[in-house]
Amino acid sequence: MLEGDPQKSRQGLILVFTGNGKGKTTAALGQALRAAGHGLKVCVLQFIKGKWPTGEARAFQRLSDEVEFHVLGSGFTWEAESHEAAARVGRAAWDTAREKIGSGRFDLVVLDELTYLLNYGMIREEDCLAVLRERPAGLHVVITGRDASRGVVDLADLVTEMREVKHPYASGVKASKGIEF
Amino acid sequence: MLEGDPQKSRQGLILVFTGNGKGKTTAALGQALRAAGHGLKVCVLQFIKGKWPTGEARAFQRLSDEVEFHVLGSGFTWEAESHEAAARVGRAAWDTAREKIGSGRFDLVVLDELTYLLNYGMIREEDCLAVLRERPAGLHVVITGRDASRGVVDLADLVTEMREVKHPYASGVKASKGIEF
Repeated sequence: MLEGDPQKSRQGLILVFTGNGKGKTTAALGQALRAAGHGLKVCVLQFIKGKWPTGEARAFQRLSDEVEFHVLGSGFTWEAESHEAAARVGRAAWDTAREKIGSGRFDLVVLDELTYLLNYGMIREEDCLAVLRERPAGLHVVITGRDASRGVVDLADLVTEMREVKHPYASGVKASKGIEF
Repeated sequence: MLEGDPQKSRQGLILVFTGNGKGKTTAALGQALRAAGHGLKVCVLQFIKGKWPTGEARAFQRLSDEVEFHVLGSGFTWEAESHEAAARVGRAAWDTAREKIGSGRFDLVVLDELTYLLNYGMIREEDCLAVLRERPAGLHVVITGRDASRGVVDLADLVTEMREVKHPYASGVKASKGIEF
């Protein structure tokens, strides 16, 4: 489906959703849903584990012919862990991601909150970029998280910054089931 | 699930995804997926009809216990129509949206590309805002589209601007099935 230079025609797209606003993870989930609807094979990897079972985890069970879904993190944020424990979990999570990316079984891999692994120094950016560059032909990758690094942005085909204009927490509204998780 | 002032505790949230970047519709779809996963009842209304059957239309068929999905537009953009024909379709689309919002059957209604109806003058902003204000207690609404109007932003609880940082069309890459539609 891609045109342009020959290199790109064999490559899937790398999409990055970054910024401080809401909608990064949901945009990635929407991409996964859309791809699954076309029968593409999708792997969704969430690097941050929430406190509660998420709606997406439950919904993707119903699309399990197309979508493989894994939560790889531990704790609500990586900061909750000791640095060493968090780093160990982060590296193990990245090992799984690398395996999924290289497997050749997927048309789309979602790396939700990947930027945290990079920004907290759990994985080296150059290792990450190498895995992305050497991914199977035609594999699309969606990366989400705040503060996407220069290298990730440079490698990406599409980058959207989700910019917070207004947020309900500011007016005392709590996280809402089905909306926030 | 909401706290704060008593008015808000009975009200669902209004979320707006606007801006010139990619991810507005997919973020809305992700919200719908997440809500459906929690068993919430969702109505997704798309005001712009594409050329091809979308992945989301197909995927939501598999979640039809929770998600009702309608494409209300005609043509790839409203601009493709004569002004009068487009206005008629726009008003009919809004009548459907108003009926779904007021029905009391849903926990979440997605109004995808609603801003086009407002920005092309097919529906009056004050009518739209009145319907949103008077919606059933607890109903969440997600609105997407470029150039969300002042009134919509003011009414919203959460607004994210999706800002285009990098777009593949700039490097000659065509729309990709499963990604763009």
